[in-house]
Amino acid sequence: MTRSINKILKKNKSFTINGRLWIECNNNRFFGPGPLELLERIDATGSINQAAKEMKMSYKKAWEIISTLNEQSAKPLITTQTGGTKGGGSVISDEARELIAYYRHLRERFNNFLKRETEKME
Amino acid sequence: MTRSINKILKKNKSFTINGRLWIECNNNRFFGPGPLELLERIDATGSINQAAKEMKMSYKKAWEIISTLNEQSAKPLITTQTGGTKGGGSVISDEARELIAYYRHLRERFNNFLKRETEKME
Repeated sequence: MTRSINKILKKNKSFTINGRLWIECNNNRFFGPGPLELLERIDATGSINQAAKEMKMSYKKAWEIISTLNEQSAKPLITTQTGGTKGGGSVISDEARELIAYYRHLRERFNNFLKRETEKME
Repeated sequence: MTRSINKILKKNKSFTINGRLWIECNNNRFFGPGPLELLERIDATGSINQAAKEMKMSYKKAWEIISTLNEQSAKPLITTQTGGTKGGGSVISDEARELIAYYRHLRERFNNFLKRETEKME
């Protein structure tokens, strides 16, 4: 009864299914592409300030994300040292790495879902 | 080797996986929750102006969405009559109804994906 969706859409164009995925904590966004990138950049640079700059994000916004991440986690995901021989800096914890790995796998499964749905349209 | 994700997150909070899904045409967003709601409200009210108002959307924005929808579709999804005994109005086509039905089913499959992933976290 229902026509195939690609009969409704124009022939000469390319249609795909796409989307975004995130983890919510008590119905508030907790972790998604933004926090993932922030953690990765803090890991690469050792600096929240540098990571925020690279993302064109204010330092305040970066701190808010970090504070939320740490609040919802059993152990802190990001710790900041001041002073010391290296002049301080920020590091991400093993738990943060596991959260990153979990989210990457989740995203892979989601990409497979999107791919299957896009193929079904054709 | 990897700890379960729920060992990383706080015990007393409720975590869920959530997301958004849309159709792209040549890598531009074409159809998602916004256009779906607009079509449904035009169908209910027979008026683009009224539908836009209900969504707190400008008339211009609503027209842009409608114009994009009609451009990418083999047949128009929304047609507007002026004058006539009923004083004109806008109607959605059978193709628009099929697109709505397709998107609702897609969204159902996506909800199942989200539910399975949320259950896996626990």
